[in-house]
Amino acid sequence: MTLSCHDLVSIADLTDGDISALLETAASFKDISLRQIKKVPTLRGRTVINLFLEPSTRTRTSFEIAGKRLSADVVNISGAGSALAKGECLKDTAKTIEAMSVDAVVLRHWSSGAAYKLAQYVQPPVINAGDGSHEHPTQALLDLLTIKDSLGDVAGAKVTIVGDISHSRVARSLIVLLTRLEAKVTVVAPPMFLPAGIERLGCTVSYSLDDHIEGSDVLYLLRIQKERQGAKIYSELAEYTRIYGLTKERWARVSPTCKIMHPGPMNRGVEIDPDVADSLGSLINTQVTNGVAVRMAVLYLLIGGAGGSEE
Amino acid sequence: MTLSCHDLVSIADLTDGDISALLETAASFKDISLRQIKKVPTLRGRTVINLFLEPSTRTRTSFEIAGKRLSADVVNISGAGSALAKGECLKDTAKTIEAMSVDAVVLRHWSSGAAYKLAQYVQPPVINAGDGSHEHPTQALLDLLTIKDSLGDVAGAKVTIVGDISHSRVARSLIVLLTRLEAKVTVVAPPMFLPAGIERLGCTVSYSLDDHIEGSDVLYLLRIQKERQGAKIYSELAEYTRIYGLTKERWARVSPTCKIMHPGPMNRGVEIDPDVADSLGSLINTQVTNGVAVRMAVLYLLIGGAGGSEE
Amino acid sequence: MTLSCHDLVSIADLTDGDISALLETAASFKDISLRQIKKVPTLRGRTVINLFLEPSTRTRTSFEIAGKRLSADVVNISGAGSALAKGECLKDTAKTIEAMSVDAVVLRHWSSGAAYKLAQYVQPPVINAGDGSHEHPTQALLDLLTIKDSLGDVAGAKVTIVGDISHSRVARSLIVLLTRLEAKVTVVAPPMFLPAGIERLGCTVSYSLDDHIEGSDVLYLLRIQKERQGAKIYSELAEYTRIYGLTKERWARVSPTCKIMHPGPMNRGVEIDPDVADSLGSLINTQVTNGVAVRMAVLYLLIGGAGGSEE
Repeated sequence: MTLSCHDLVSIADLTDGDISALLETAASFKDISLRQIKKVPTLRGRTVINLFLEPSTRTRTSFEIAGKRLSADVVNISGAGSALAKGECLKDTAKTIEAMSVDAVVLRHWSSGAAYKLAQYVQPPVINAGDGSHEHPTQALLDLLTIKDSLGDVAGAKVTIVGDISHSRVARSLIVLLTRLEAKVTVVAPPMFLPAGIERLGCTVSYSLDDHIEGSDVLYLLRIQKERQGAKIYSELAEYTRIYGLTKERWARVSPTCKIMHPGPMNRGVEIDPDVADSLGSLINTQVTNGVAVRMAVLYLLIGGAGGSEE
Repeated sequence: MTLSCHDLVSIADLTDGDISALLETAASFKDISLRQIKKVPTLRGRTVINLFLEPSTRTRTSFEIAGKRLSADVVNISGAGSALAKGECLKDTAKTIEAMSVDAVVLRHWSSGAAYKLAQYVQPPVINAGDGSHEHPTQALLDLLTIKDSLGDVAGAKVTIVGDISHSRVARSLIVLLTRLEAKVTVVAPPMFLPAGIERLGCTVSYSLDDHIEGSDVLYLLRIQKERQGAKIYSELAEYTRIYGLTKERWARVSPTCKIMHPGPMNRGVEIDPDVADSLGSLINTQVTNGVAVRMAVLYLLIGGAGGSEE
Repeated sequence: MTLSCHDLVSIADLTDGDISALLETAASFKDISLRQIKKVPTLRGRTVINLFLEPSTRTRTSFEIAGKRLSADVVNISGAGSALAKGECLKDTAKTIEAMSVDAVVLRHWSSGAAYKLAQYVQPPVINAGDGSHEHPTQALLDLLTIKDSLGDVAGAKVTIVGDISHSRVARSLIVLLTRLEAKVTVVAPPMFLPAGIERLGCTVSYSLDDHIEGSDVLYLLRIQKERQGAKIYSELAEYTRIYGLTKERWARVSPTCKIMHPGPMNRGVEIDPDVADSLGSLINTQVTNGVAVRMAVLYLLIGGAGGSEE
């Protein structure tokens, strides 16, 4: 099984067959992490570079664990101390990495489009682990796997995404992926957090969370990214919580089968009430578990592992 | 062989049998580091997270080497760039790590009690690698192994611990462990470095190093942690050295069989004279060697490694 | 095959036989990185410490990949958060690392002579990965391998090194190595970038790049290290480029067989025109590829790997 695409920069790179292949492979890889010996020799002797030029713990750790469970050699490069900090351009960093004969480059970058450019520069597959406010395709895939496992079917599912859509690469990838699979996606946010034309991605737009509390199969809450918003755009977090937070009051109104999702890290008490985050309907930890499996699948299918013994 | 405890947060977690098991296992693991091929497959396919939210080289490196020599996959997470820096609470970091199916979490944290809290949050064993000024149990265990190897018997040994007891998690764990094994522990420090009630841990308190120079079997010097003390609490380091430093003059008075220990990193010329640190009686490097062995034992006994081949 | 030296601190450590052994071994290791499974068990169970107390991506990554492709356990220690940042002296860091039973220490340090001192402190081999403005011997060796592969013979080759010779450990190691193998080395720089007496290393000195454009077999451009020069020493970078940059105009005058080299990271548009850097005559990416192979050879020959199975 392989993918039709060479890189995973954007959800648009994937055919329907690719998406199925990724989900199937991820499902089979989930078992590996449940074993005592969580390791298969599939990517033994392959080199995976984790090039994280924007800080990230959760995604970097997830990719590192995914690579190591497939027996790849994983090398982390962070922004601090990197040649890029000395003024090197991305192209030269790319060419340097390529010249070391690596098998895949996982890129987290602050700039939208960086993964696309990197994929043009280097021969090995590039995996976008989040670029600016553009895309974060492995997050969308792990969310899809989580929804599918929980609801059974994605087509027709009512998914409500709440929060700062404008700055969210997670939202962008997820809307594209879910609407393609015929989920009914609504984005809910104050106008300043809604990019013009977002409905062209296939979703419905709403300014009121209260209108969608009852009917949703999934409530997907985005993180209020305080560190991105230098000034207090939405002057009071409490005001945000009052109108757009998943408070206990709103939680009391949701369907008992409604699932809660969040890409993390959470601001408990801001976009989500702490008890709601820990409630039975919360799939937040399942998302993390599925993240390792999906990233194993992406690495495996893009690198085309075959395993085999050392020479 | 296993331990009776699920986590190693505090020396109080350990029964006498646990302590014996750890020392025996560490002794057998010391040989591995002396071989050409310093690796056994015991923890192959297990994932160990080194969550170091306070900077540390020596302890992090020691745990990383310990894990790798047991063939575990070790993943480092540091404070800089972590989700915690984005405001995530420790509980959510813990839940995220747990959801990635890890086998142990080694935690260094600036806050006393953090390891205890982490152990409540996650299923895999938590190993406290130093939390605030609370405890540092693996340091105490490696010190115990070092004293036992050197003196033969711990019961009745006169151990004098000198320095900033108040801020020292090392001192706290060590006093508890050694007094339990019937060593005679004296802590020596200026009053401001002595927490009220420290004698309740079973040690004797003294303000005069000179009173204990001659009779000690072990002089254990703590680091003056300049970086913890914003202002110059003890206004002149030279004054500290004059009264509490192990100077050449004091060294000339110690018994020829007296051993010198220090958890590192040393401030040569402050709490210890450079030549004394390098003298024959110094066990400082042995402590480091034993550190790797003790941490291998802790990882092995808590994770319960069994080895086996890949599937 | 082994080396006559115990450490690789300086090119002067190497006999002619050592240089031949390193080049031959590197050539054979180049194949490993071209395989699907880029890994041999040669250094299985050995521990390599990458002690990088000055930021570096390219060299650290190169050594890390080299070690991992030989199956060594590689442990990275960086300056930030290290005990050295807490005031520990290099000797104590060295002794600590040694006490953990490591097989080699790769050191990058800001201070000239640090690698020499480290080698005096510790028993395992020390590999200098750049110390202040002193030496960077593995860079010189990978450059030598690149020149030999490209020109066939080094003796008699005209190599012109252009840039800030004073601050360049790369230049210093390279001049010594190439002149010893009877290359004709010219250094070209403004007077302020030329250390007094540099010609005693066996090279010719010139202030004019234009005088050497036509006759060179290799043009080796050094990076203008903006971050080292607090004030604008050479007040305008544009002025440097006009006189010492490899511009398109100068490139038009070089021999069609002339090769372009640069140790990276490049300042495109300053010391080198972007199109020239990407031209057919550029060996810049080949240098990086050879870097991994040379560092594998250095690790292998200094550690004396024999491989073998786990116990």
